[in-house]
Amino acid sequence: MMDNKVGRYEFVAEPFHVDFTGRLTMGVLGNHLLNCAGFHAADRGFGIAELNEDNYTWVLSRLAVELEEMPMQYEQFAVETWVENVYRLFTDRNFAIRGADGRTLGYARSVWAMISMNTRRPADLLALHGGSIVDYICPEQPCPIAKPGRIKVSASVPQGEFTARYSDIDINGHVNSIRYIEHILDLFPLDLFRTHLLQRFEIAYVAEGYYGDRLGLYVDQSVPGCHEVEVRKMDGGEPLCRAKLIFTKRN
Amino acid sequence: MMDNKVGRYEFVAEPFHVDFTGRLTMGVLGNHLLNCAGFHAADRGFGIAELNEDNYTWVLSRLAVELEEMPMQYEQFAVETWVENVYRLFTDRNFAIRGADGRTLGYARSVWAMISMNTRRPADLLALHGGSIVDYICPEQPCPIAKPGRIKVSASVPQGEFTARYSDIDINGHVNSIRYIEHILDLFPLDLFRTHLLQRFEIAYVAEGYYGDRLGLYVDQSVPGCHEVEVRKMDGGEPLCRAKLIFTKRN
Repeated sequence: MMDNKVGRYEFVAEPFHVDFTGRLTMGVLGNHLLNCAGFHAADRGFGIAELNEDNYTWVLSRLAVELEEMPMQYEQFAVETWVENVYRLFTDRNFAIRGADGRTLGYARSVWAMISMNTRRPADLLALHGGSIVDYICPEQPCPIAKPGRIKVSASVPQGEFTARYSDIDINGHVNSIRYIEHILDLFPLDLFRTHLLQRFEIAYVAEGYYGDRLGLYVDQSVPGCHEVEVRKMDGGEPLCRAKLIFTKRN
Repeated sequence: MMDNKVGRYEFVAEPFHVDFTGRLTMGVLGNHLLNCAGFHAADRGFGIAELNEDNYTWVLSRLAVELEEMPMQYEQFAVETWVENVYRLFTDRNFAIRGADGRTLGYARSVWAMISMNTRRPADLLALHGGSIVDYICPEQPCPIAKPGRIKVSASVPQGEFTARYSDIDINGHVNSIRYIEHILDLFPLDLFRTHLLQRFEIAYVAEGYYGDRLGLYVDQSVPGCHEVEVRKMDGGEPLCRAKLIFTKRN
């Protein structure tokens, strides 16, 4: 029963997917997590392909990743994923990241909604496929990291900016969720990554960015090592996503 | 015998690896090609890990990709790779990209050198491992695309620029080969990708970029659809790489 509820997918940390320290980047890990969510849902009849037939799609609302370490270049690792909870408008999907020797590298939590592509309005998850999504709920699997919290940024001067280009845009015509992570990491100096572990990364997707949008990155630093970032349209100030990064000093 | 000479590796075009048209991006394809080169070399005793023990490493000098089409989102495809030729200081490695149904999507050619990490000087490929690298030469495998040519850019005003950030830097502390491809593609408007196929992409790596380098992208357009790009340090003008892109109108 557990076997069917928890999906497990294997990866290797490829050379162009690791940073200057030789560790997998958070953007690439995020990509793997979202792919695993897709595989796991598809295997159970709730994949994008099936949903698209009915003009529904999954939308990622929040992602939080907390790690003790990132896989090293060429290291094999696995992502396990399962559904923790299903509500009417949201579902919580969790992840564990395991090293080659089975040790746990970290965990992640994600929150998803389903929307109608015709109306862009949320769908009732409990009404879909006769409510069968609840058969996959697996609350007994532990995920000992905090849920994504509220992120609030008050800075009014951007610390960085970029214009959304070809490489930023996904098949839906929106700035792709992973590229936001990369642009946010690029705010921080190399030295910080050398001396610190990005122990927790959290992101909340608020609105869609489009090709040509000029986007500003606004940063608050409340306590040392904790940075809250908001990506806003420079033109109008609409927030597109918010992230929170916790860096802890390496031994 | 051929089986041992030609490596074959399977992929699927992941959602965050396709562009707004739903086709794999050239950066991601380039990443897969370089990974396949690594797998194929490693399986034959010429991988980075083995070379590193002797303080040698492979350096990509040139890459040319020519395609009839790119894999679509979720499409399975395969990369085949083999060594066409080995010279004293360079080796030519070719690739074929095959769709799920076995049809050929395109081909690629690459040129590699091996350097000593102690002296940064090139190694004699024919002297390595008693010259056994020549056992893997497979000239009979067809690769019907032109070899990488000479690229010359005379523009003196940049059409774009970027500063090398965290996400750009690889484990060697250099701007990563794939990120150059992405930055170069980002020079071109979305409409060009909508109406045209990037039929041929060619890149020559000349010198290494480092964290914090301000890099300018200089573009010549000699004939319609053909763009030659040079990435130069804004400070000093040193060229780091040169690329040539041929866009052909879609039917």
